[in-house]
Amino acid sequence: MEKGLLVVISGPAGSGKGTVIAELLKSEDFVYSVSATTRAPRPGEVHGKNYYFITKEEFQQRIDAGEMLEYTCYCQNFYGTPLREALAVMESGKNLILEIEVEGAMNVKRLYPESVLIMLLPPSFSVQEARLRGRGTETEEVIQARLTRTREEVALVGEYDYIVYNHQGGAAACAEDIRAAVRADRCAIRRHPDAEKLYFED
Amino acid sequence: MEKGLLVVISGPAGSGKGTVIAELLKSEDFVYSVSATTRAPRPGEVHGKNYYFITKEEFQQRIDAGEMLEYTCYCQNFYGTPLREALAVMESGKNLILEIEVEGAMNVKRLYPESVLIMLLPPSFSVQEARLRGRGTETEEVIQARLTRTREEVALVGEYDYIVYNHQGGAAACAEDIRAAVRADRCAIRRHPDAEKLYFED
Repeated sequence: MEKGLLVVISGPAGSGKGTVIAELLKSEDFVYSVSATTRAPRPGEVHGKNYYFITKEEFQQRIDAGEMLEYTCYCQNFYGTPLREALAVMESGKNLILEIEVEGAMNVKRLYPESVLIMLLPPSFSVQEARLRGRGTETEEVIQARLTRTREEVALVGEYDYIVYNHQGGAAACAEDIRAAVRADRCAIRRHPDAEKLYFED
Repeated sequence: MEKGLLVVISGPAGSGKGTVIAELLKSEDFVYSVSATTRAPRPGEVHGKNYYFITKEEFQQRIDAGEMLEYTCYCQNFYGTPLREALAVMESGKNLILEIEVEGAMNVKRLYPESVLIMLLPPSFSVQEARLRGRGTETEEVIQARLTRTREEVALVGEYDYIVYNHQGGAAACAEDIRAAVRADRCAIRRHPDAEKLYFED
């Protein structure tokens, strides 16, 4: 059986990552990777579903034991992907979705060049700003911090393999784009550098 | 409306191009480009469906008038893609399939770097040989010529964007791969070199 791919999805606040990923998870061949984190759970967050909430000591032990596929420190907390679970999912032929910040994505790309990196974006910065304000759930200070952070995130878009724009109500279309990208990427010529040799050998 | 893409499909004898393309054409967003040729029609071939059969003089006039999107000379006959029809299809938002030899594909890539090049291959050379012999419709001499030609074709696979393997009975899966490639290619980062700039400008 063909192994599943590591699919990294990043996107700024307001890009609709959560909805698009929920849409993707409707097909059985995608599995969500639950990250481990040292930050405190927010109301409603469930251990083992949203995150594995662990202590800084435990996180450090896992890093030392080589049990993290990747990890990153963000706002003084660690976030990481448990290695064993990730490998098991891909061995089973399913694609593993990592929903991670751009810094983590760059680590994954360096460690696993065969992963597929996807940046989800609102149609434009002005639409993003309108969406964040439209939610009405965050203070002006938080909104400003997210918009500032967006500049750092979008600056790295060129390091991604695919860019998917999330137009109004377009979560299903975005999921379809991502499914296509994962399927097509298996056929991409860069994944078959020895195609000629293998063709005549086999 | 987003313009359609130019989709070049090449593949050696026995790769199943005809069946896969017929499968692709079941969806309305793909249109087959009927080539013009100076070779004589074979029994059963229909002018305007399989090819536009025209004289060498007419072909030359069309080249001189800039009315061929690409053309190539193969076995002392011209083969080419009528430009006006091709542009009309893509303007309408549909993808245009060019089923052409590797030489023509290289011309298209040079002239239209934004086209998508797909090489369809049997699983291996030995499977291809078995398939050609299994047909029982060609002389040994013709089979040998096709197998020799295959080496020239597969030597260019690295110039293609995608490689699609046609396993036994896999025409539907191949068509799905090609559909995914065309959809994903629109999201490929190389098609969005100014994404960051445009995001903040818009």
